[in-house]
Amino acid sequence: MEFDTRIGVSEPDKIYVHGYDLTEDLIGEITLADMAFLGAAHRKPSQQESKMLNACMVAICEHGFTPSSISARLTYLGAPEAVQGAVAAGLLGAGSVYLGAMEYVAQMLQDGLKKVEDENDVQIIAAQIMEERAKKGLQLPGFGHPIHRPIDPRTPKLFALAEELGFSGKHIALMNEIHRQFCEQKGKALTLNVAGAIGAVLSDMNLHFSVVKSFAVAARAVGLIAHIVEEIETSRKDCMAQKLYDFVEENTNYKNTKSARDKGE
Amino acid sequence: MEFDTRIGVSEPDKIYVHGYDLTEDLIGEITLADMAFLGAAHRKPSQQESKMLNACMVAICEHGFTPSSISARLTYLGAPEAVQGAVAAGLLGAGSVYLGAMEYVAQMLQDGLKKVEDENDVQIIAAQIMEERAKKGLQLPGFGHPIHRPIDPRTPKLFALAEELGFSGKHIALMNEIHRQFCEQKGKALTLNVAGAIGAVLSDMNLHFSVVKSFAVAARAVGLIAHIVEEIETSRKDCMAQKLYDFVEENTNYKNTKSARDKGE
Amino acid sequence: MEFDTRIGVSEPDKIYVHGYDLTEDLIGEITLADMAFLGAAHRKPSQQESKMLNACMVAICEHGFTPSSISARLTYLGAPEAVQGAVAAGLLGAGSVYLGAMEYVAQMLQDGLKKVEDENDVQIIAAQIMEERAKKGLQLPGFGHPIHRPIDPRTPKLFALAEELGFSGKHIALMNEIHRQFCEQKGKALTLNVAGAIGAVLSDMNLHFSVVKSFAVAARAVGLIAHIVEEIETSRKDCMAQKLYDFVEENTNYKNTKSARDKGE
Amino acid sequence: MEFDTRIGVSEPDKIYVHGYDLTEDLIGEITLADMAFLGAAHRKPSQQESKMLNACMVAICEHGFTPSSISARLTYLGAPEAVQGAVAAGLLGAGSVYLGAMEYVAQMLQDGLKKVEDENDVQIIAAQIMEERAKKGLQLPGFGHPIHRPIDPRTPKLFALAEELGFSGKHIALMNEIHRQFCEQKGKALTLNVAGAIGAVLSDMNLHFSVVKSFAVAARAVGLIAHIVEEIETSRKDCMAQKLYDFVEENTNYKNTKSARDKGE
Repeated sequence: MEFDTRIGVSEPDKIYVHGYDLTEDLIGEITLADMAFLGAAHRKPSQQESKMLNACMVAICEHGFTPSSISARLTYLGAPEAVQGAVAAGLLGAGSVYLGAMEYVAQMLQDGLKKVEDENDVQIIAAQIMEERAKKGLQLPGFGHPIHRPIDPRTPKLFALAEELGFSGKHIALMNEIHRQFCEQKGKALTLNVAGAIGAVLSDMNLHFSVVKSFAVAARAVGLIAHIVEEIETSRKDCMAQKLYDFVEENTNYKNTKSARDKGE
Repeated sequence: MEFDTRIGVSEPDKIYVHGYDLTEDLIGEITLADMAFLGAAHRKPSQQESKMLNACMVAICEHGFTPSSISARLTYLGAPEAVQGAVAAGLLGAGSVYLGAMEYVAQMLQDGLKKVEDENDVQIIAAQIMEERAKKGLQLPGFGHPIHRPIDPRTPKLFALAEELGFSGKHIALMNEIHRQFCEQKGKALTLNVAGAIGAVLSDMNLHFSVVKSFAVAARAVGLIAHIVEEIETSRKDCMAQKLYDFVEENTNYKNTKSARDKGE
Repeated sequence: MEFDTRIGVSEPDKIYVHGYDLTEDLIGEITLADMAFLGAAHRKPSQQESKMLNACMVAICEHGFTPSSISARLTYLGAPEAVQGAVAAGLLGAGSVYLGAMEYVAQMLQDGLKKVEDENDVQIIAAQIMEERAKKGLQLPGFGHPIHRPIDPRTPKLFALAEELGFSGKHIALMNEIHRQFCEQKGKALTLNVAGAIGAVLSDMNLHFSVVKSFAVAARAVGLIAHIVEEIETSRKDCMAQKLYDFVEENTNYKNTKSARDKGE
Repeated sequence: MEFDTRIGVSEPDKIYVHGYDLTEDLIGEITLADMAFLGAAHRKPSQQESKMLNACMVAICEHGFTPSSISARLTYLGAPEAVQGAVAAGLLGAGSVYLGAMEYVAQMLQDGLKKVEDENDVQIIAAQIMEERAKKGLQLPGFGHPIHRPIDPRTPKLFALAEELGFSGKHIALMNEIHRQFCEQKGKALTLNVAGAIGAVLSDMNLHFSVVKSFAVAARAVGLIAHIVEEIETSRKDCMAQKLYDFVEENTNYKNTKSARDKGE
């Protein structure tokens, strides 16, 4: 029984990671995000790819108080001996609802372009995608935001960077066209959100949609550090998790009366 | 009830993260690892700090097949619908045994230097620390490695970078002195491992020991991407997790015989 | 802001859980599995329901070495300070691949019976379900087993218990009929596995399909205790996780040669 | 390479778990909690042991809104596709702060009794333990409760059951004596809480302290079902997790002003 891997191997005085000499080629030479790229693309990113990927991961790293960061804080409150558990709990909420869109957008764009002969006719492709999803009763992923209306400020920033760095290709063009048609259809300005933007940008960086979510999850892990640090730096009594727990306890309305139960038996 | 935070806030057209304008100051301007620094130090790193921190996180990001990365792969095998769960499972093994040392080293060095008046007399401080730990029956963290003997190649690389970037201060000096005395005491060359090196470097970057482990956990999350990608890219039948599971199943020696049980009742 | 719940409330000298007095009505009066029933059905189970549910949860509690239990052991190896992390890692692999079937079976049966006027004509309903799934390219959940062929010994046991305890209703009948037609269609004896059996039994206990998976997850948490105990009872050097890790390390075939990398650049 | 286990093995028509025939000896014969006992003690519990263990696990299964159950709900909000993740997140908060006490009590009592020749002189042993812990600056685990003062109603209930079922031995006696001396020392009635009670009861059932926490974690997994069910049964908009998240968002006080940042640079 042998286990093949392209990822890494250690010798007494050398460590190879993704085919590179860790100390010669990677430490001090590349950024942390580049390690994610290496894992997905099996080669070091170019300078442009590195900058673009760092930008995308920075953009989704931190969202303030979210179900995910609150879970991490609550977990740290109960298990400060295991920071890894707090980070893990924070990541577990990074599922289909909040992070899924990024992957769904990438898949929608990549599948949409694969099906057609003439990749340049984005108008037709966009219309096809929208019609197909409507027929299946599927939502269009990558649109809408509770706060950032009608523009998510990260979207123009990321698209401008993609343009500048040479990654503004057919996927971004298609996403923009879907956006245009969707707004037209609805008769109002809809937000093309950061998940939609990143799904398109990573697609134009030739990253397969199936790896997109793991990039988002890793970025979140980095973002959770700040939340755990903020809990550490606040006294236990005043930390956010304790305050929140106390608040919930004081405002719990118990609706299951003993008498109701008795009748039910 | 109000929840204070210095981390982030969103307005319709602006997002502030750690006091910076996300789109103006951070996206495209800083690296992913810098977000970790921001979370711990509440300010952007200098160029030197950014390079040093990226180097440290790259150094501990990836270790090939480990209990942690194998868990992530096994979890992905059972729950491919939830990549976040695979990453979380991988992180949960990043506990005291494998990652703890980094924090323990940082704490040992930071506490050791806090207790003394003359920070420059590393020989005496090192001796004190070693004596104190010996008295309490505590191991010296940061030493030893099953493969990298007598030198962990990451250690000289990181210390050289620290020197070059201006972070080679009293904590690294103290760690090197502890190493020297420890080798002398044992009468042989002992490995100062990467956990020991990073514990010292991050201390010389003025990062508090309590945040060190969360940096390591976040770096691991990035490293786990490669393992999940490798599982995705291999057919389900041939993926490492399935092969490993099959191997275990075929080589399980069930030692609890029915007859043994009968006698026990 | 108020948070409603029917689950529990504490007063200085009383604790109410699901409308019952914890110390008077529950502790010493009901089993652990009954707490799961209480959570899902909002009332105490009858003696028959309790026995049936305990039987189902016992049946899926333990599977020996599985990706899930191996992950738990590997996690314990790296983080013995946090048993909760080892259990959590074990549960994270209990996803769609291994546990999903139970829920899919329950949903298939419950939806199938909801659509028809005459619930007693299981032959027609079974045929409809099979036709519909075939049309959509969906597999039939609850069938097949790598080892237990052509009979999963748990299935007849659970169906016999259901009969004895009065839970053998239309869902089990429908599942048996689907099994009969499926074997006929394939021209061979196919295993109706334990997931299929439990999906049918819990449906005949009037439990909604959406809660079925959480029952399975909780049962697994109980089963993982044995694996963690076995790791604790074995010396660190000889424990299964360490042996497995050593084996993987010794049998890793690193396929990413430096020269291959050089050509790629 | 062989992996030994006493836990389980499957043959085509038989499954052995802990030396028993799963379908003949366990399904329909024992309760879910008994599987936990089997895992820890390697034999089926007696009827008394089964009742006592079920009572203990029922007692700590459910605590209403806690950091742990709130995390599970928040995680389900973000990742409803992966119930196992919600349960895992809930368990990750079950660490040293809330569940640790149970294990620490069991260890304190078991170690305390091991050190002495005359196990019956609980007064002296209790005094020794208290003196030793005071010297080391260690708290006495198992005492105090924010709500249940001066009596945790679960404690007399569990001790009465232990008496009735024949498990009221030297560990419970020692715990009661520590309680008596501690109250005397402090000059007031202190709560002997449920963690203290269960630590003592499980010790008198001859369970080793190292397995105590895994029992508590598994009980919690069962308790979390109710919380996930309550989220499922409430509309997404009105579920507790969404309401809580909205509340936090509306009441976040962002203290990191851009101007403050500018001065800092």
